[in-house]
Amino acid sequence: MEQVHREINPHISVDCVIFGFSKNRLKVLLIERTYRNEQGSEEKDFKLPGDFIAPEEDLDRAACRTLEELTGLTDIFLKQFGVFGDPDRIKKTIDLKWLRATTGTEIKRVVTAAYYALINISESKREFAVKNNAYWMDLERVRNLAFDHDRIVREGLRHLQHTLRFEPIGFELLPERFTIRELQSLYEGILGCTLDNRNFRKKILRSDYLVQLNEKQQGVAHKPARFYQFDQEIYEKNRSENYTFNF
Amino acid sequence: MEQVHREINPHISVDCVIFGFSKNRLKVLLIERTYRNEQGSEEKDFKLPGDFIAPEEDLDRAACRTLEELTGLTDIFLKQFGVFGDPDRIKKTIDLKWLRATTGTEIKRVVTAAYYALINISESKREFAVKNNAYWMDLERVRNLAFDHDRIVREGLRHLQHTLRFEPIGFELLPERFTIRELQSLYEGILGCTLDNRNFRKKILRSDYLVQLNEKQQGVAHKPARFYQFDQEIYEKNRSENYTFNF
Repeated sequence: MEQVHREINPHISVDCVIFGFSKNRLKVLLIERTYRNEQGSEEKDFKLPGDFIAPEEDLDRAACRTLEELTGLTDIFLKQFGVFGDPDRIKKTIDLKWLRATTGTEIKRVVTAAYYALINISESKREFAVKNNAYWMDLERVRNLAFDHDRIVREGLRHLQHTLRFEPIGFELLPERFTIRELQSLYEGILGCTLDNRNFRKKILRSDYLVQLNEKQQGVAHKPARFYQFDQEIYEKNRSENYTFNF
Repeated sequence: MEQVHREINPHISVDCVIFGFSKNRLKVLLIERTYRNEQGSEEKDFKLPGDFIAPEEDLDRAACRTLEELTGLTDIFLKQFGVFGDPDRIKKTIDLKWLRATTGTEIKRVVTAAYYALINISESKREFAVKNNAYWMDLERVRNLAFDHDRIVREGLRHLQHTLRFEPIGFELLPERFTIRELQSLYEGILGCTLDNRNFRKKILRSDYLVQLNEKQQGVAHKPARFYQFDQEIYEKNRSENYTFNF
């Protein structure tokens, strides 16, 4: 069981919901937590990577520091998406005992600032950066997390899906050249639904920052699909020049 | 000077950025704060309506309670948009002294959950609901607020403008029947810029939830403009049936 030997602000914490995308599936990075049950035997469950902030530590910095300490992940752009302060969020006996054991302090109420990020798990550096007690779990298997972390994951997913609709955040997870089918699989994986092929194609091809390349897939059994590329420059240009109303 | 005679959690506060729209101008609701300067004479400045949370109080509830206590406003939908936790956000001497005087406690570090709302000032009930020391200030005049409240207002505005682009939140501020010109003025007021008339018209008329009425302005000097109406039902229907990619 980890023991904190540093000064903390026991009223405020940060928690990180790191979504990973791999083989068209959305996963969440969790930390295995070991605790003793009522009978005194060891049990395990999962929690989000999170920690109390230090007395003079900025929240954004605390989130990055925590993520690196617990998982080894660095240089991740973490976006704050909410603050969770339900008075009952740490009232479960297991959670209270675990907090007492890991901090050495009697903790009463903690308000937590929540952050999320979306990363490509298969980028090898990031895959191996994950430490021993950190674990990528398929989103659909995530339940019964510690504290109110189920709720924080749900809210984080809602923010991720919203952002995916309004900003081209998905392209960073694809290879530089990709097919429309690959792009659609990414959207389906994150939105957790099946999209109509024709509609998706039509909509996505309307965007002028999706550049069609003069290259096709090679050595595939089916009709080779054309490759596309995302043009960040065109996207930025149109975004600033052309104020759109998109609702 | 107000004095708090109740139990507080001195580590966590809530602050509300209430945007009001009136005569095509965006305003912010501020609370006048009285303090003694270095020479001991009384001075005034402004702060956002905000307060410490109670030990067992939910954040959303604290925000509503605070707004009602300080301004008399009730039934406002407050949306949480961020948490501000810079270690230096309450380090100014004036702010520290004011906190000591109003709470009777030595306050070190406060993390605040920020909420915003957009309301129509001219709805009479809301106009008169504002209490004595609350004040609607033109957004462009807002500066040198207490604590980091300038920053919180800026961030709140950014969230409001983002939401205005992606959700039809503006219509609630207009009369039931409105002209395209009135709608455009609303957008310009909130976005703080001038929009191209033709482009605005073209874009906004593409939306099928903007219903053209068989009525025109009467008794105006210029060519009477047609009235429109926002159809919430059509909006909700299309929103859920038709997943769009709007970036």
